[in-house]
Amino acid sequence: MIGVGVIGYGYWGPNLVRNFVESGRARVLWVCDLRDERLGEAARRHPGLKTTRDPRELIHDPALDAVAIATPVSSHYPLALEALEAGKHVLVEKPLAATADDCRRLIDAAQKRRLVLMVDHTFVYTGAVRKIKLLLDEGELGHVCYYDSVRVNLGLFQHDVNVLWDLAVHDLAIMDHVLPTLPSAVSVTGIANVAGQPVNVAYLTCLFETNTIAHFHVNWLAPVKVRRTLVGGDRRMIVYDDLEPDQKIKVYDKGVSLEERPDRVYNMLVNYRTGDMWAPYLDRTEALRHEALHFVDCVTRHETPLTDGEAGLRVVRILEAANTSLASRGRPVAIAPA
Amino acid sequence: MIGVGVIGYGYWGPNLVRNFVESGRARVLWVCDLRDERLGEAARRHPGLKTTRDPRELIHDPALDAVAIATPVSSHYPLALEALEAGKHVLVEKPLAATADDCRRLIDAAQKRRLVLMVDHTFVYTGAVRKIKLLLDEGELGHVCYYDSVRVNLGLFQHDVNVLWDLAVHDLAIMDHVLPTLPSAVSVTGIANVAGQPVNVAYLTCLFETNTIAHFHVNWLAPVKVRRTLVGGDRRMIVYDDLEPDQKIKVYDKGVSLEERPDRVYNMLVNYRTGDMWAPYLDRTEALRHEALHFVDCVTRHETPLTDGEAGLRVVRILEAANTSLASRGRPVAIAPA
Amino acid sequence: MIGVGVIGYGYWGPNLVRNFVESGRARVLWVCDLRDERLGEAARRHPGLKTTRDPRELIHDPALDAVAIATPVSSHYPLALEALEAGKHVLVEKPLAATADDCRRLIDAAQKRRLVLMVDHTFVYTGAVRKIKLLLDEGELGHVCYYDSVRVNLGLFQHDVNVLWDLAVHDLAIMDHVLPTLPSAVSVTGIANVAGQPVNVAYLTCLFETNTIAHFHVNWLAPVKVRRTLVGGDRRMIVYDDLEPDQKIKVYDKGVSLEERPDRVYNMLVNYRTGDMWAPYLDRTEALRHEALHFVDCVTRHETPLTDGEAGLRVVRILEAANTSLASRGRPVAIAPA
Amino acid sequence: MIGVGVIGYGYWGPNLVRNFVESGRARVLWVCDLRDERLGEAARRHPGLKTTRDPRELIHDPALDAVAIATPVSSHYPLALEALEAGKHVLVEKPLAATADDCRRLIDAAQKRRLVLMVDHTFVYTGAVRKIKLLLDEGELGHVCYYDSVRVNLGLFQHDVNVLWDLAVHDLAIMDHVLPTLPSAVSVTGIANVAGQPVNVAYLTCLFETNTIAHFHVNWLAPVKVRRTLVGGDRRMIVYDDLEPDQKIKVYDKGVSLEERPDRVYNMLVNYRTGDMWAPYLDRTEALRHEALHFVDCVTRHETPLTDGEAGLRVVRILEAANTSLASRGRPVAIAPA
Repeated sequence: MIGVGVIGYGYWGPNLVRNFVESGRARVLWVCDLRDERLGEAARRHPGLKTTRDPRELIHDPALDAVAIATPVSSHYPLALEALEAGKHVLVEKPLAATADDCRRLIDAAQKRRLVLMVDHTFVYTGAVRKIKLLLDEGELGHVCYYDSVRVNLGLFQHDVNVLWDLAVHDLAIMDHVLPTLPSAVSVTGIANVAGQPVNVAYLTCLFETNTIAHFHVNWLAPVKVRRTLVGGDRRMIVYDDLEPDQKIKVYDKGVSLEERPDRVYNMLVNYRTGDMWAPYLDRTEALRHEALHFVDCVTRHETPLTDGEAGLRVVRILEAANTSLASRGRPVAIAPA
Repeated sequence: MIGVGVIGYGYWGPNLVRNFVESGRARVLWVCDLRDERLGEAARRHPGLKTTRDPRELIHDPALDAVAIATPVSSHYPLALEALEAGKHVLVEKPLAATADDCRRLIDAAQKRRLVLMVDHTFVYTGAVRKIKLLLDEGELGHVCYYDSVRVNLGLFQHDVNVLWDLAVHDLAIMDHVLPTLPSAVSVTGIANVAGQPVNVAYLTCLFETNTIAHFHVNWLAPVKVRRTLVGGDRRMIVYDDLEPDQKIKVYDKGVSLEERPDRVYNMLVNYRTGDMWAPYLDRTEALRHEALHFVDCVTRHETPLTDGEAGLRVVRILEAANTSLASRGRPVAIAPA
Repeated sequence: MIGVGVIGYGYWGPNLVRNFVESGRARVLWVCDLRDERLGEAARRHPGLKTTRDPRELIHDPALDAVAIATPVSSHYPLALEALEAGKHVLVEKPLAATADDCRRLIDAAQKRRLVLMVDHTFVYTGAVRKIKLLLDEGELGHVCYYDSVRVNLGLFQHDVNVLWDLAVHDLAIMDHVLPTLPSAVSVTGIANVAGQPVNVAYLTCLFETNTIAHFHVNWLAPVKVRRTLVGGDRRMIVYDDLEPDQKIKVYDKGVSLEERPDRVYNMLVNYRTGDMWAPYLDRTEALRHEALHFVDCVTRHETPLTDGEAGLRVVRILEAANTSLASRGRPVAIAPA
Repeated sequence: MIGVGVIGYGYWGPNLVRNFVESGRARVLWVCDLRDERLGEAARRHPGLKTTRDPRELIHDPALDAVAIATPVSSHYPLALEALEAGKHVLVEKPLAATADDCRRLIDAAQKRRLVLMVDHTFVYTGAVRKIKLLLDEGELGHVCYYDSVRVNLGLFQHDVNVLWDLAVHDLAIMDHVLPTLPSAVSVTGIANVAGQPVNVAYLTCLFETNTIAHFHVNWLAPVKVRRTLVGGDRRMIVYDDLEPDQKIKVYDKGVSLEERPDRVYNMLVNYRTGDMWAPYLDRTEALRHEALHFVDCVTRHETPLTDGEAGLRVVRILEAANTSLASRGRPVAIAPA
């Protein structure tokens, strides 16, 4: 059992509290939020829990082993840093911080004190993404030709970040987890359709030194909800549809093999290699449950989490380059090297 | 009744011949192809039709009023020019020509002789696209915030052109037809996954001077077939799914209206304005039938076609800029002004 | 504010309690269940609420105005009767009782004391079913030719009732609510695939004296989940798909108009009258919220509920006839007249 | 090469002619139809073919080995009988004949002369149904608990037969082919919504002596097209959706295993045994091509076809019993024993 405090009890914080509580491996001792009614709600749901509007009161409680931070992006860095400096292990909601420099400082602070720093890339802990990772690691797909992701719906406009930092961050975290190589540059376009609001439609291409491309389409203003990723390998291809209730992942034994056809003047024949389709059984445990347990494990065993500070940094590096490219209408911008 | 000759009897030529024949308004007198077995096939299907391997024999037959060209892109320009110079009206398969300069020369040649020059942007003549055009012209969608198109499948690799010139050309022609403004620049990324073959996955963004963005995703190497376009207006939104057998167009009375919520610290409330969805009845006549009749009408009435040389030129200008941007990994490239 | 007691805190009881509480129009004073851990759960979620294992303690509390019963079917009758005799208004989970005779006795008991007796036909209070009712009442569909319902999934096998009493009861209640006429007989077939368990696949046809037919397919052993109803009118047709997140109801302006075709030897031409499709906006309020408020309204205003004892009786009459027909392999069995 | 004559050149006849021609194993020498314009069409498409309005002229041509009959149901028997008596092998469109007695007489006539009598149960020759048959034969599904088929659309009303003889005949033929046991009785309900026209909506249950049930829903008046069959085995289950372009067959490794749960008062726990889903690759050759080749093989090798006269008879026996049950509103009617 470790003692955990949660800062931020808005949309995501309650899920963190609930999953730590139900994990049976952590005690949630504190909840901090600036809004009294949220603290009241926390207390109502979890009698015995202490509440405060002051994050420092929470952070400096010696009974706490770890702090989970689910606040707006701009406060991730100062809160996480203070917690690390107070000797607490830290779990931070995505994205890890607002800049790559801040991420680096958090990583260093954690390393110096041998503390766990973990970023909440939730999708990495879903049954679907873990299966994709496994299939790729085992070579089932062969070389990945492309990674194509769409995440669009009619959604909340965020005040402080654009749609890339709100939605694409999920897909960049998934890609970072499953692909064996890192992108070297990005080219990004987008638009802010509502005056005074952040960019709400964006298209991000990750460029690689290898023969791979990745593309991300995110949109807060779509009439239909789509959450679909294609991973095209030269042996097999995956369609990952997160809205499917049952078969989220379909593996297609499909591809092309080229053949010169002297009898055709204009086209080369693509042999449609079309075989079975297969939808593997997926673990349906709530991703955050796996993640909470993994965090507790890392804290108690002094291990490095799957989504450590470096993973958080890699994703923020892409997002930083993306903002620069977006501002110059698609100009390719190199991603800062590790 | 006008006399028509068709050059190229591969994949698309037979459709042109059939639709001219069945229109009852044109006589197809000649078919030209380099391959004897294709000429045999044409003769078998349409007894009485003359065949030749020499396009000049066809072009210079005084009995012909018009020539339709359905050959590989590189031959569009010389064949169309020769036909225009021989005083024939011309219908050319998309794209109009391989360069904007060639398009311009064809337009000039046609204008000088007061001949009809029409490009075969087939989708413009579908019931679905004509309905979208109508809805946009009548202001049903309000201002168009974005235009987003996906056309992917496991398809033939073309030898002579990349996937943009093969697939995106359809969607650029549709966008050109339905949107009231022209894009000013493009940013394009893509990849050639098969050694020695053209780019087979590409992402093209059209940038506008107005508050609009358009994006095109094309792919010859996808495990599933998708043909879907979203048109997001600030009043209503359209989903156009060309694979739906019945309801190809769905109009969503959806959007957002923003409202400051002082009680929410982090988010501004998006009021999900969600109303009815409506799938209008669409004319199912084969698009090419409408197009063939329109061409005959323009020839006999000396009128300018809906998809005239200028439309063909506008699309080729985008494709030319796209190739340049693609080669520089997304750098925005201005589209040559009209 | 009325005082309510809820008997049965298994699957459905918690929803009743929550909706009465959140309605702001009722105070839930008591929860009764035979299982201590369920009572503990109720107390934990709703502090201040009294709990008991003895339904009599609840029923005879003078502070209570009404009792809601969410127990297994066999206990509906004795509990509801005792509550009515104690002068309480009563809401009973579907089906109203195990036999038509029991339903009749409850109706009489309520009538004698001028108490509200309501059956919990939840779907009647959904936005979707209320819209179907409205469309039918306004004549939008014309004469209803057929009503066809499928409700199948991989589901819990009930101990005490067969799949008709568990699943078809929902659809019979919907049909009873929306159709203007009553069925006169049923023909039912089915099978019990698991030894010693109730019938788990069943097909029920309702026969009418009018030119209408209704059919219900229910199945606890299906690999996919389907919840779809077709209502075929001679003017328009509805597809009601309860699993669609957004467009649960689609209205098709489709039908046939027959025309003799002397030029066709074998067939008469069906003119496919195919017009627009339309998916009306639906109220998404939880059905049970509407239902709880409606119950409170009926109690306070001495009004007859939409789903009164007679509605409960009509559905049980069909189910009783269904069991008889099922036992004789489809033989048509008359439904007891009102 | 065998010589074939085709009687009836309406909707299906042209497909028969084309497939025999393209098989390369048969010469189509004659086409017979009552309508001159159909004969003209046949001659236009297949130069060299002889045409006649008199079936006897065709049947008695000594150059013919076999006759294929694609006429209205009522003429199947006299035409087939005459052809058999003239010593020709015979292929008859479904259903084999209008009565079981007629089927029996055709079987006897063929047997006496050692001629092939084959019924055109086309779906039996599709890649999908052949795969289902294989999976069932190999025991992949275990014991079949139920077979549930839906075939509905907005379709042509037939003059001479009801919707069972037009649509359900397809599904009965499939069931007859894939299931190991024969049904013993049927219970059927339906309705004729258009005055003076045949029954256009029908529900047919096949009752078995084994622990299996089969149900067929057919409808000519549905707003949407559905062609879906569920085959529920106690080991695995199949969903066969004939409208899916690619994955027509999905095999679900799903089922239930029951477990007593003493801690649950009311329900027995169904363990949702949910594993992978798998969509096997299917041969996409046109079914009629396989069928035409199979017929030629049977003729040349003196073999019994997969869909012989007995198969045709079994299906007609069910349809005969179905008509009787339909007339008595679902009363179970025994199927005449073989």
